[in-house]
Amino acid sequence: MTDFLAETTDLLARTPHVLRALLAGLPPSWLDTPDTPEGWRPRDVVGHLISGEVDNYLSRARRILESGTSRAFDGFDRVAMFDRDAGRTLDELIEQFAELRAANLETLAGLGLSDADLDRRGLHPSLGEVSLRELLATWSVHDLDHVSQVYAGLAGSRDAAVGPWKVYLGILLRRTDPAAKAG
Amino acid sequence: MTDFLAETTDLLARTPHVLRALLAGLPPSWLDTPDTPEGWRPRDVVGHLISGEVDNYLSRARRILESGTSRAFDGFDRVAMFDRDAGRTLDELIEQFAELRAANLETLAGLGLSDADLDRRGLHPSLGEVSLRELLATWSVHDLDHVSQVYAGLAGSRDAAVGPWKVYLGILLRRTDPAAKAG
Repeated sequence: MTDFLAETTDLLARTPHVLRALLAGLPPSWLDTPDTPEGWRPRDVVGHLISGEVDNYLSRARRILESGTSRAFDGFDRVAMFDRDAGRTLDELIEQFAELRAANLETLAGLGLSDADLDRRGLHPSLGEVSLRELLATWSVHDLDHVSQVYAGLAGSRDAAVGPWKVYLGILLRRTDPAAKAG
Repeated sequence: MTDFLAETTDLLARTPHVLRALLAGLPPSWLDTPDTPEGWRPRDVVGHLISGEVDNYLSRARRILESGTSRAFDGFDRVAMFDRDAGRTLDELIEQFAELRAANLETLAGLGLSDADLDRRGLHPSLGEVSLRELLATWSVHDLDHVSQVYAGLAGSRDAAVGPWKVYLGILLRRTDPAAKAG
């Protein structure tokens, strides 16, 4: 396995464990606040990550390998989780995500990608030509971006509780003013 | 233990496990980038969290219980880690943080705080009067704020690698423009 692939996979494999350590069994008072007023609660984020496993990153990797730039990636429903996951518990969603991620990483490893393969190119419907390497790097940063949203939601659930300390807590200030500076 | 204390402690107890799951043994190529150009690397964040265990939150809780508002909290060195932790590995820092946090939560539980105790007030040198409840809520949100910084640093290490996808990745755009909107 190339260094790039090993290092990217290392991060991707951690996300389910991080989500379990952070969220599984956490008291409900932490879990019902979105990252921004119009944003996502922790369960919405985990649902979105499930969507990414079901029909985004690995499907697009296959598309690159099978069709190169001759056939663009399919679109991706960013909000599929709101209907699909209604009535399921957060802990169930975390375990489903963990299973999907583990299976996808096993499939990815089985592709036996070389450095040359990572330079193969596909066609993103909006961004144009992209490489398989860029797709896989994006998969990992997409995890980081969304898990970071979970932190803002958790913090938001304690917005009033911190009292005057809020002025020092950028994670709270930025929920309503992205450019806010902590004091 | 009051509900507030149990729920706050639940989150505080998770942070070392989250940091271990996310960072312990992670390949170095992920770990050398700060959250913003002038910001902190993951190891700096863990060092700052160590400082919080050594001489911030629990010390201030004791000050409230012992002196109320008659004696202000001592100051806190936000950047003590840069000199103190030079030459130590990230994995060592995580384990030190885990030990300190576990010991502090055991001490906190041993204080047997009631709801009335949580309303007791102390004196912050800049913010003025604050309650013990606000202090403990801040301890937990401070964790979330800083662990969130770790995510931005990790993402930043892949800033170039994602290629054109960067326009969709708010966690990367915000490293240099806090008000940036992902496309």
